[in-house]
Amino acid sequence: MFTYQTKIKLHETDAAGLLFFSNQFKIIHDAYESLLESIGFGFADLIRNKDYFLPIVHTEADYKAPMFVGDLIEIRVKVSQVGKTSFTFSYELRDAADKLTGTAQTVHVTMDKASRSKIPLPSDMRSKIEELYVEDQK
Amino acid sequence: MFTYQTKIKLHETDAAGLLFFSNQFKIIHDAYESLLESIGFGFADLIRNKDYFLPIVHTEADYKAPMFVGDLIEIRVKVSQVGKTSFTFSYELRDAADKLTGTAQTVHVTMDKASRSKIPLPSDMRSKIEELYVEDQK
Amino acid sequence: MFTYQTKIKLHETDAAGLLFFSNQFKIIHDAYESLLESIGFGFADLIRNKDYFLPIVHTEADYKAPMFVGDLIEIRVKVSQVGKTSFTFSYELRDAADKLTGTAQTVHVTMDKASRSKIPLPSDMRSKIEELYVEDQK
Amino acid sequence: MFTYQTKIKLHETDAAGLLFFSNQFKIIHDAYESLLESIGFGFADLIRNKDYFLPIVHTEADYKAPMFVGDLIEIRVKVSQVGKTSFTFSYELRDAADKLTGTAQTVHVTMDKASRSKIPLPSDMRSKIEELYVEDQK
Repeated sequence: MFTYQTKIKLHETDAAGLLFFSNQFKIIHDAYESLLESIGFGFADLIRNKDYFLPIVHTEADYKAPMFVGDLIEIRVKVSQVGKTSFTFSYELRDAADKLTGTAQTVHVTMDKASRSKIPLPSDMRSKIEELYVEDQK
Repeated sequence: MFTYQTKIKLHETDAAGLLFFSNQFKIIHDAYESLLESIGFGFADLIRNKDYFLPIVHTEADYKAPMFVGDLIEIRVKVSQVGKTSFTFSYELRDAADKLTGTAQTVHVTMDKASRSKIPLPSDMRSKIEELYVEDQK
Repeated sequence: MFTYQTKIKLHETDAAGLLFFSNQFKIIHDAYESLLESIGFGFADLIRNKDYFLPIVHTEADYKAPMFVGDLIEIRVKVSQVGKTSFTFSYELRDAADKLTGTAQTVHVTMDKASRSKIPLPSDMRSKIEELYVEDQK
Repeated sequence: MFTYQTKIKLHETDAAGLLFFSNQFKIIHDAYESLLESIGFGFADLIRNKDYFLPIVHTEADYKAPMFVGDLIEIRVKVSQVGKTSFTFSYELRDAADKLTGTAQTVHVTMDKASRSKIPLPSDMRSKIEELYVEDQK
C-alpha cells in the first residue's frame, strides 16, 4: 500500500473553518501523482512524452470527520480494480491519531491523445499497476 | 430547476489542457451557493448567524466530455432527496451546444454547530428545499 | 475601462473567515481573461492557435478591506502601460457600496512559444491593447 | 533562513502548461505557515485562540523561470522587516538545480480581531520574529 503525507493548508479550508470538500480531491490526486511517479510515470513525462491520457471518468468521496488547518493527514492508496481500458484507485485519509477522516475513489480510463478514444492500458503501465493490485489484495 | 452559468477559467484547467477534475466540484458548489442565496440562505448568513452547518458527507461525479478554458457551462441543479436530517442535490453540466459534460451529486446533513451532532433540518430551510423538490419532480 | 463582476465564493475564503489573499489574483485574472476575450483573444485560441505566450513576470496587490463569502465585487481593469515586448494591466476591486477593497497589477511579456524568448507584441494584439490604453488615459 | 520543499502539483498548473501565477502565492504561504508553526504559532492556534489576525496588506512576486508539474521547489524564507505593527517576509523559490524560479514578498499587519484595528505585534510573537530577523541579517 502506498502512503503519502500532507498537512492541511490554510488555503484548503474555507470560512466555515474546515477543509473545503473539493480540496480532499486535490489531496488524493497529489497522493496519486506521487504514487505514479514512484512507479516511473511522473506527470511531466505523461503529459509531454506519452500518446495517452489517464482521465478520471468517475470519482466519489465520503467525509467522516472534520479536517482543520495544520492537521497532519496520511493518505493510503490502493489499486482496487484493473480492467482492460480502466483502473480504479481507492484512498483512505487518516489523521495523526489514525482516525479515518475520509475516503475516496477515482476511476481512470486510458485514452488516446490524438483520437480521444479509449485504448487498452499500455503494457508497461499495466504491469506496474497490476503489481500494486496484487500486493494490495494480500 | 435552478440554473447557473459560468465560464471555465484558466486556473481551473491543468497542464493536460482540460478542466482539472476537482474543479467540477468547485463549480457545482458555486451553483449550490447561488441556489441557497436565491431561497434566502446566503452563506455569509449561514456562517455568521445560524447555529447549524450543512456539511457534505458524500459526493460523486461523472465526467462525460472534456471542458476547456473559455467554455460556457450551464449547471442545472435539482433537489433529488429530502430526508429528516439530510438532503441531496443533483447537478448536470451542459456546454453551449447543450451537450452533457458532467454530472454530480452532493449529500448534505444538518449538523448542530456547538455539539457537531446531526439535527433535523430546520423548518424554514426544510420548507424551501421541499418546495424545490416538489417542483423538480414535475 | 473594462469592468467584470463576480461574487466571492466559499472556496475562495479560508478558515480566518475572509478571502484568501492569493484568490484576489485568481479573480483579477478572471477579469483579464474576460477582457482579452472581449477584444478577440480568448485563452482557448491563445493556447491552441498562437505561437506566443503572455506570461506574467511581475504582479503585486494591496488589500484594503476584508471580502466575505457572498460579497459582490466589481473589478475595474485598465491598461496602464504598453511597451515593445510587455504591457501592464491595473485592477481595482470595489464592493457593492463602491468601497475599494483591493488593487493589483500584472506585468506581461510576449514570449515566443518555441524559443521561450521575448518577442515584440504582435501587431493585431498591440493595436487592440493600445486602443484600450488611449481610452483609459482619458 | 527557513526552508520548505514542495513539488509542483498538476492542479497548480494550467492549460498553458506551467504553474499558474497565483499558485506561487499559495506555495509561499504554505512555507510561511510551516515557518510560523516551527516557532510555535500554528494557524489552528492563531485562528482559535489568539485575539489578533496577521492579514496580508501587500504582496508582490516576480516570475523568473517556468515551473512544471513534478518540479521540486525549495522555498527560502527570510524576515526582511519588523516594524511596530507590521512585518515583511521575503521568499526565494529555487528548483532542483538551485536555479531561481521566482521571488515574492508578503507584508503583514497585526490586527485586533474584535475591533479590526491595527495593534502592536504581541511581544511573544515579536521576539520570535526578531530572532529570525537578526539571524537572517547575518
